[in-house]
Amino acid sequence: MEHDGKLGAEAPTWRFGAASPVLGAARSQSIRALVYRMYDFLDKGDTRPVAPLAHGDPAAFACFRTAPAAADAVAAAASSGVLNSYAPAAGLAEACSAVAAHLSRELPYEVSPRDVVLTAGCNHAIEIMMTVLAAPGANVLLPRPGYPLYASRAALSGLEFRHFDLLPDKEWEVDLAGVEALADENTVAMVIVSPNNPCGCVYSRHHLAEIAETARKLGIMVISDEVYDHFAFGSKPFVPMGVFGEIAPVVTLGGISKRWMVPGWRLGWIAATDPNGILRKKKVMDSIIDYRGISVDPVTFVQGALPHIIANTDEAFFANAMGVMREAAEICHGKLEEIECITCPHKPDGSMFVMAKLDLSRLDGIEDDVDFCSKLAKEESVVMCPGSGLGMKNWLRITFAVDPELLEDGLERTKCFCHRHGKIKEANS
Amino acid sequence: MEHDGKLGAEAPTWRFGAASPVLGAARSQSIRALVYRMYDFLDKGDTRPVAPLAHGDPAAFACFRTAPAAADAVAAAASSGVLNSYAPAAGLAEACSAVAAHLSRELPYEVSPRDVVLTAGCNHAIEIMMTVLAAPGANVLLPRPGYPLYASRAALSGLEFRHFDLLPDKEWEVDLAGVEALADENTVAMVIVSPNNPCGCVYSRHHLAEIAETARKLGIMVISDEVYDHFAFGSKPFVPMGVFGEIAPVVTLGGISKRWMVPGWRLGWIAATDPNGILRKKKVMDSIIDYRGISVDPVTFVQGALPHIIANTDEAFFANAMGVMREAAEICHGKLEEIECITCPHKPDGSMFVMAKLDLSRLDGIEDDVDFCSKLAKEESVVMCPGSGLGMKNWLRITFAVDPELLEDGLERTKCFCHRHGKIKEANS
Ligand SMILES: Cc1ncc(COP(=O)(O)O)c(C=O)c1O
Ligand SMILES: Cc1ncc(COP(=O)(O)O)c(C=O)c1O
Repeated sequence: MEHDGKLGAEAPTWRFGAASPVLGAARSQSIRALVYRMYDFLDKGDTRPVAPLAHGDPAAFACFRTAPAAADAVAAAASSGVLNSYAPAAGLAEACSAVAAHLSRELPYEVSPRDVVLTAGCNHAIEIMMTVLAAPGANVLLPRPGYPLYASRAALSGLEFRHFDLLPDKEWEVDLAGVEALADENTVAMVIVSPNNPCGCVYSRHHLAEIAETARKLGIMVISDEVYDHFAFGSKPFVPMGVFGEIAPVVTLGGISKRWMVPGWRLGWIAATDPNGILRKKKVMDSIIDYRGISVDPVTFVQGALPHIIANTDEAFFANAMGVMREAAEICHGKLEEIECITCPHKPDGSMFVMAKLDLSRLDGIEDDVDFCSKLAKEESVVMCPGSGLGMKNWLRITFAVDPELLEDGLERTKCFCHRHGKIKEANS
Repeated sequence: MEHDGKLGAEAPTWRFGAASPVLGAARSQSIRALVYRMYDFLDKGDTRPVAPLAHGDPAAFACFRTAPAAADAVAAAASSGVLNSYAPAAGLAEACSAVAAHLSRELPYEVSPRDVVLTAGCNHAIEIMMTVLAAPGANVLLPRPGYPLYASRAALSGLEFRHFDLLPDKEWEVDLAGVEALADENTVAMVIVSPNNPCGCVYSRHHLAEIAETARKLGIMVISDEVYDHFAFGSKPFVPMGVFGEIAPVVTLGGISKRWMVPGWRLGWIAATDPNGILRKKKVMDSIIDYRGISVDPVTFVQGALPHIIANTDEAFFANAMGVMREAAEICHGKLEEIECITCPHKPDGSMFVMAKLDLSRLDGIEDDVDFCSKLAKEESVVMCPGSGLGMKNWLRITFAVDPELLEDGLERTKCFCHRHGKIKEANS
């Protein structure tokens, strides 16, 4: 049927388009959007390669290529023809079992496959937790600096969030006195990230035990974001928070994005590492599965490949990856030490990130961290994440999960940039 | 550090566990949970194969195996090693372009790749739309019977929803007078599904034009769920709603789940099929991309494979699949005609589903549709979806996207069941 020509005689008033204020609030926390903005400042005429030090995505570099066994497992699952259907809301049974066994190896108790829910990446796990905990009046405690998606998703679901500090002078440990001061009778959970994005620290057994005791005292669960599990290349080994699940119930979030260097595969999990079964009794696990049922699913054949990915990946792959990561962290820290207006309170020994403080008094004509990052992108084709995006004004978040040569080059350019923008009296003094 | 033994002296009061009422509301609409409940009634002792007539997932059957070219494209992308990174919030540029070109072939104008956002399945597209439209006070109009995820996600984001009827005696067309009566100045959108789940109908050009005119009159956008695009095997061809995008702005939701029979691959899209650019002007597209930035992403290598999936799939694959689907629809309708207590107002000519009405007056000891489906599962290992899950009490939703032999067998068992539970006077009359 052709349109009858009445069109346009009178343009209608379209009633949609008022943006939701909640969405606005959520969006304002989006680190992804902030980092995109920095990319917009890049000078197209600059022929040097862009140094992408803002977001941690090692998969972009040949030196961080995933294990062949993992790629083979996924390709085989995709071709099998028997993993093209919808999967159950909790995930394929064999994949849940594989995750349960994988986690149990490092815990003093067995995680039941029934306590594992697969997610479309760890981000999805965060979304789920920030949704199911949003009872009226409830609040959740988040680390500052942290991973902004927690605040975004809490804002979106109407879950109040409060920030506690990580202490730069104490290797970015949690300010537990601050946590206690912040909590009230409506607090339901606290979030920790270890190994830590953005601080690059790994929490000790002792500190994790203290966190558990604090949670117990407050009657809250610990949500432990371990998407960087085993990303520990300094002296402190990675210890899963679930080791202390008997003290306070722990919800462990994880995935294959970082350890296998495949963030594009979108597979993560939520596991109740809670030997007393409190999360199950309190129906938290039921809520998680219910929400999964009306949320997205991870790809079925990637789920199907997971047992093989876990079983067949060589230890040598992880050892090699951590070797490169350690080298990259060394380069990063070493180069930053050469830059006068930047200080690193802690040499990174975990994750893919480090927080560095800007000393604006040593710089001329740079207003703040956002201004620093914008100009750095424009003049040097180096992209860093402004600390403001993480609630840390005049700090920088820098990733070292970058090809070591490009990393070194990018930081050398940053050094030149800082030199060029350095205060004159500085140069004379 | 071992725990110091203080544990258990005094069990703490855990403060979490109060379920969010919004989540409860959302969950109550979940068709997935309702269908799972039916599976719980299955008699483990029954050695006959379960006839899964509740949810449309053809991928479970060899006769609906996806095109080899599609499987090859995904396996190759997974192995390539260059598609393991995070993708941009809107999706990989080449995949957005492929979708835009794919849709443009059937439209009187070109869809710009900038107007396409990739999603983790069409369900994710629904989630996104029901989230971004949730301005305070806004409401959206949904079809009854429909696809319950719309209501679930609207409830979760605080978007009011109102149901208009589809008319069984008019081939399940939209009750447009009802739509007009339902709309008010806060109405922002109406949703249509064509080809239609659950009714099995395909809307004509004429009806789609009427829908567009109604939307224009009301000043609202049309959200057109075309996840069953080209699932039309009767006399009416599939016509995309976007053909009438000049009359009223259309947001087209789609994906590869159904047409390529790979729901487990989780790839869908949102496209503004809106030649006047109203959705862009009204910042609806911006909101969609913003929300995508704090939501999940489709798997990068599946995105990367999409251009090849679209380009390399043989027409013969689709023709064959529609042939089997047509045959299955015939079997389904024919068998249902043999059952006295069940009536089908419309012989399905699209999608994978049909709605059938239960006549309880002809049945003994069956309370309602849920009771019917529970007992049918228990006694005959046949799973159907109770109409109540779709707001249609004492109706059934039946899928025919099942191996034809098993479909026929399942419906034969349903016939026996109805016979066995038929009213005695019926048998005597
Ligand atoms: C602390 C933290 N949690 C979760 C994620 C998201 O992980 P995924 O890629 O599996 O969604 C990231 C990614 O950078 C992260 O840094
Ligand atoms: C009407 C309708 N929309 C959307 C979907 C979801 O599609 P996908 O599997 O791509 O998420 C379905 C699935 O059954 C459906 O019936």
